[in-house]
Amino acid sequence: MNREEQEQQGIALLAPRPELIPLAADRPRVLVFDVNETLTDMTPLAGLLEHVGLPGHLLTAWFAGVLRDGVALSLAGGHATFAAVAGDGLRALAAGEEGATDPEQAAAHVLAGLPELPLHPDVRGGVRALRAAGYRLATLTNGSADTTRAVLDRAGLTDCFERHLDVAGPGRWKPAREAYAYALDAMGVPAGAALLVSVHPWDIDGAARAGLATAWLRRTSRPYPTTARPADLTATALPDLATRLGAT
Amino acid sequence: MNREEQEQQGIALLAPRPELIPLAADRPRVLVFDVNETLTDMTPLAGLLEHVGLPGHLLTAWFAGVLRDGVALSLAGGHATFAAVAGDGLRALAAGEEGATDPEQAAAHVLAGLPELPLHPDVRGGVRALRAAGYRLATLTNGSADTTRAVLDRAGLTDCFERHLDVAGPGRWKPAREAYAYALDAMGVPAGAALLVSVHPWDIDGAARAGLATAWLRRTSRPYPTTARPADLTATALPDLATRLGAT
Repeated sequence: MNREEQEQQGIALLAPRPELIPLAADRPRVLVFDVNETLTDMTPLAGLLEHVGLPGHLLTAWFAGVLRDGVALSLAGGHATFAAVAGDGLRALAAGEEGATDPEQAAAHVLAGLPELPLHPDVRGGVRALRAAGYRLATLTNGSADTTRAVLDRAGLTDCFERHLDVAGPGRWKPAREAYAYALDAMGVPAGAALLVSVHPWDIDGAARAGLATAWLRRTSRPYPTTARPADLTATALPDLATRLGAT
Repeated sequence: MNREEQEQQGIALLAPRPELIPLAADRPRVLVFDVNETLTDMTPLAGLLEHVGLPGHLLTAWFAGVLRDGVALSLAGGHATFAAVAGDGLRALAAGEEGATDPEQAAAHVLAGLPELPLHPDVRGGVRALRAAGYRLATLTNGSADTTRAVLDRAGLTDCFERHLDVAGPGRWKPAREAYAYALDAMGVPAGAALLVSVHPWDIDGAARAGLATAWLRRTSRPYPTTARPADLTATALPDLATRLGAT
């Protein structure tokens, strides 16, 4: 008997297990997944940086800088696509590093790797379990919905998701409230019926402020920051999250 | 004869030199300086990271992550101090790195280095030249005004600045419009009378959107990003900026 069947039969209401179903009262039916690092493993991009003469360890600084610059642009009232901001970041890295490839070529080479990224190994099983339990699934990325679709198609997970969304619609990057509101609108549910799943504390914080429930996917040993609103749930991987949300 | 005396005698009006005085029509009288990396050289923090068992090359990723997280919090409608966000970032680094010091101690050790940072070697001469030319000077940082004051006091530049400002007042990090508006209000001038000086394109972009003139201090060979509004002026160092602004 899966979680939905249990609930239909009132079992969860008769015997609530708060450690597994912490949001039982108005349990989310829609799960909104972040994509970069939450579903995809970005570490292969370090190899692409090395192909163009850049140290692989710059991957972390580059990705943090892309988010900084895209989010800053939204805070200042502007907007640019992930690809444009990410390309600027790569051109800057290549121009600053002796022995790097031509900046334009370096940027194009690394960006071409985004749709080729693999999923984390826990994603396929976790997504299928959550879908089988009756949750409605969507993705919401500061990147590109087309890139998300390419990655999930290759993994055979297309059928599990109703929508792949990006921030071109609202014209504001996460964690602006408008980005989460856009996803809620696309899925036709109020904030209280949705839960955001992300590895990024800044994303958890923004979704919480926009009224969504939140699940922090803790893929590393790093602690949750004191300055971000806490997540409603913490899970180490998607199957763990599926268990906590009552999927079997 | 300095620039102010020239202007008083009408020399600039009779013989404008646009390459030197591009904003002659309503020339800014107030210069607002960013602090971290614009005035201070942050590279000694790499040594402090190494003291606590972290690779020095993580400095760039850490600082980009601090700006990402602080700016994201503002975009989501929250606020935290630079020290709090920076401490979170350091604790996360230390928890994720084998052989690192206890995360609390690591964070405290690196943060204690901020008021001890040196100025870039061009800052003293450039600031004195700009002040001598009659410009009114202020600083505006996402960091702490007290830290700014400590650094500039040690360099003997206290007398050159009217105000040291941070974003505790507006409760929003740069590049939010409110942060620049707060500095304009503190200096008692409209946006058209002020120019922001920064090494950070996201800061230039935000100031430009808030109506200030802008000068990008280009301390590296990195190109200016395509996704940020361009600066009105580009200078390689503060004495170069002083020359372009008509100081001698």
